[in-house]
Amino acid sequence: MIFHKMSLKMLRLVSAAVLCLGFYLLTAFQSEKPPAKTPNIVLFFIDDLGYGDLSVNGALGYTTPNLDKMAFEGTRFTNFMAAQAVCSASRAALLTGCYPNRLGISGAFGPSSPIGLNPEEETIAELVKAQGYATGIFGKWHLGSQEQFLPLQQGFDEYYGVPYSHDMWPLHPWQETSKYPPLHWIDGNKQGKEIKTLDDASELTPVITEHAISFIRKNKSKPFFLYVPHPLPHVPLAASAKFKGKSGRGIFGDVMMELDWSVGEIMKELKTQGLDKNTLVIFTSDNGPWLNYGDHAGSAGGFREGKGTSFEGGQREPCIMRWPGVVPAGRVSNKLLSTIDILPTIAKLTGAKLPKAKIDGIEFVNLLKGDDSTTPRESFLYYYRQNNLEAVRKNDWKLIFEHPGRTYEGSLPGKNGQPGLIPEDHLFPKALYHLTRDPGERNNVLEQNPEIITELEKIAEAAREDLGDDLQQKKGKNVRVAGRVEKK
Amino acid sequence: MIFHKMSLKMLRLVSAAVLCLGFYLLTAFQSEKPPAKTPNIVLFFIDDLGYGDLSVNGALGYTTPNLDKMAFEGTRFTNFMAAQAVCSASRAALLTGCYPNRLGISGAFGPSSPIGLNPEEETIAELVKAQGYATGIFGKWHLGSQEQFLPLQQGFDEYYGVPYSHDMWPLHPWQETSKYPPLHWIDGNKQGKEIKTLDDASELTPVITEHAISFIRKNKSKPFFLYVPHPLPHVPLAASAKFKGKSGRGIFGDVMMELDWSVGEIMKELKTQGLDKNTLVIFTSDNGPWLNYGDHAGSAGGFREGKGTSFEGGQREPCIMRWPGVVPAGRVSNKLLSTIDILPTIAKLTGAKLPKAKIDGIEFVNLLKGDDSTTPRESFLYYYRQNNLEAVRKNDWKLIFEHPGRTYEGSLPGKNGQPGLIPEDHLFPKALYHLTRDPGERNNVLEQNPEIITELEKIAEAAREDLGDDLQQKKGKNVRVAGRVEKK
Repeated sequence: MIFHKMSLKMLRLVSAAVLCLGFYLLTAFQSEKPPAKTPNIVLFFIDDLGYGDLSVNGALGYTTPNLDKMAFEGTRFTNFMAAQAVCSASRAALLTGCYPNRLGISGAFGPSSPIGLNPEEETIAELVKAQGYATGIFGKWHLGSQEQFLPLQQGFDEYYGVPYSHDMWPLHPWQETSKYPPLHWIDGNKQGKEIKTLDDASELTPVITEHAISFIRKNKSKPFFLYVPHPLPHVPLAASAKFKGKSGRGIFGDVMMELDWSVGEIMKELKTQGLDKNTLVIFTSDNGPWLNYGDHAGSAGGFREGKGTSFEGGQREPCIMRWPGVVPAGRVSNKLLSTIDILPTIAKLTGAKLPKAKIDGIEFVNLLKGDDSTTPRESFLYYYRQNNLEAVRKNDWKLIFEHPGRTYEGSLPGKNGQPGLIPEDHLFPKALYHLTRDPGERNNVLEQNPEIITELEKIAEAAREDLGDDLQQKKGKNVRVAGRVEKK
Repeated sequence: MIFHKMSLKMLRLVSAAVLCLGFYLLTAFQSEKPPAKTPNIVLFFIDDLGYGDLSVNGALGYTTPNLDKMAFEGTRFTNFMAAQAVCSASRAALLTGCYPNRLGISGAFGPSSPIGLNPEEETIAELVKAQGYATGIFGKWHLGSQEQFLPLQQGFDEYYGVPYSHDMWPLHPWQETSKYPPLHWIDGNKQGKEIKTLDDASELTPVITEHAISFIRKNKSKPFFLYVPHPLPHVPLAASAKFKGKSGRGIFGDVMMELDWSVGEIMKELKTQGLDKNTLVIFTSDNGPWLNYGDHAGSAGGFREGKGTSFEGGQREPCIMRWPGVVPAGRVSNKLLSTIDILPTIAKLTGAKLPKAKIDGIEFVNLLKGDDSTTPRESFLYYYRQNNLEAVRKNDWKLIFEHPGRTYEGSLPGKNGQPGLIPEDHLFPKALYHLTRDPGERNNVLEQNPEIITELEKIAEAAREDLGDDLQQKKGKNVRVAGRVEKK
């Protein structure tokens, strides 16, 4: 070595200065257009995906590397609630920021249902479109399959996908003769190619991915809202040739790996287009796993029950939000949030006006950006069936009212796509759980906490006034009506 | 803008070149000493930690941000087996690369046991010490509490910790009068301060952390092997004032957050000392959760049963390995591995000689470094109790033999540190499981797979010849004896 200690220090300083200059030059001349003022939004909404179905949440037998990466580059929310544990209701809530019963909506619409999300309701797409956003949905709509209810009538510029769940089709694998009409892809308002076989269904994930990527390319120069409600891993399961047998876990694992691939491709496109840093990506699910499908179902992780129940396994969803430099990386937040909070949060981020009609969502921009001292949401209502207020929550406490409901416990699991039978009218007793100490809802502490009960009963009473409660034959004062096609 | 398109491109090229030069200069003059040839090793071995107890594996009610970060910066192994589902046996296997019954060891040694790991067995510490490594253990030993068995007699330069599980003490929380002698810290070979109360026990994690950090500082200029077998979250649980109540999940969550803090502090020290890039960090656990402690126990995630059973919940452990630039970041590997494979792997990495006596471990250096085409381990033996061959595994298949054993199912969970009673002699029937399709070991496919049974029976037969099997009153040919203090 010819340098003594002092000159080594000097050299390090010089090197650092040259490095800084390099960075400055590179960033100064990298981009010709100024960064967009408001972020792009990509919203993944996965069907029947359980809390435990990502490898970053403990999934076994397959891996989800792209989602795990997203989790480590963003924030995982572990107390994130679907607004109802069933498809159409959950989707209506996501897009409007309202509990579904406020919209007059419950359950999952059948293919010939005259019901749809009322076109007068304002969706996220409508709000951001008014701000100059391009809006696209690629995947499953399920908010009314009659033309007047389709996405183009709800603020979306583009739609390619299926109108409802792809188990509602003539090749329904567990019914001898089908009660369902043929299932078609929908392109905008037009009927496209028929989905006849499971091989056709195996195109769902890749085709939706392709459309999402084209949408990003086409709209790279203006802000956009891209909604990707993948129809899988809802049954019947189908993976494309590239993924069949890939996981070793069977078809469920294969489907999950293909969905993870899809997320990875879309993230890659954001990077390719230089949009990565100005895009908020949200990944979550409509409801928990359909457990009686056994090896064709996902897992609720440590939570009780699954889809179609107001236990945490039905409504607690995996949730990741990523926005480099804005949303803290590698954070896990236990703050209570719900899909209904997404609309007001996006509105605030994009400068959009809130809907004129009452909503239930609460914006959480500060929490999203890393301020863990804020608690945007303190309570949550668990409605199911037509309009049963099955449970209410305040922070960690959840009070469950006596109610009839589905239970997966003790039922025979399904196999190879055939569901196991489950009792739908089990009577659940009144119970109080502390969800942080007892996330599995096993340790009923009703007797020990009279003052907590009083507090939670008050929340329930206010909810019954506002939204009604079929369990108590009570009509709500502030409910609106769903859209309905007049019968000819 | 005064530049046209061509000159912008040129400027970008120039910027990139300047940037490269800066990086070159900075790295060229950054470090005065050449990088060490062989890596430091830090080995965390956590007590009774279940597969589901890290937030990166789906833990609920608390977070483990430092471990999650380690997982994303390294590789998570999801098929990583403790060699036996109980304390002393599992530790003996880790340090020697042998199934514990090869060493003549089973179960957990009591405080007055005359048994210990035979001083003639060669441990990881002895192997790397011969290569010039500094060696330290800070935490729980549990391989013999008589002086001749203590760590300084097994290749460690330094020891500060407890000699056995800290539930073996006079203040044992669930026995009226204790059968145990006072519990002391051990410093080298000398008895130190008595651990009298749970407040004293709450010093376990911070004091061990402090010693581990001092060891790194002291040995930063030579390669080292740092073994950190934290005694918690084994019961009785205790967290220091800084962590009590921090998680909201109760004392178990608090203890986990303190352990995660400890890992974070040690990782931080590696960075501070500039050793981060030349250190292989391994994080795993001795056995699954002690489930009948209820709210004082961890979770096996999606796996069946827990500590003291040869179901996956007893032996499948969380495992993270991190070595920046060498072990791929953000990878999840499903390849079968065991704690017994760590010794030969470290031997290969450090150039150390393997022990003279037969070992069972298989080195996995190529897999560790990212070559996913290698499958170092194809089979695994599940021994429990004295020497019962309860199950054998080949790749995804696990054949369970009829055996008596502990079950946690249907037992009342414990509360507040009091365990629930569990039957120890449940008779488990013969069963075959495919662990990737059915990680929860619920779907017995014995009838459908006669050819798999034949293959697995062959592995079992060879194991019985080699190591014996009490279930079949068979003595093994190649077993050695544990150390034993002659009675005076």
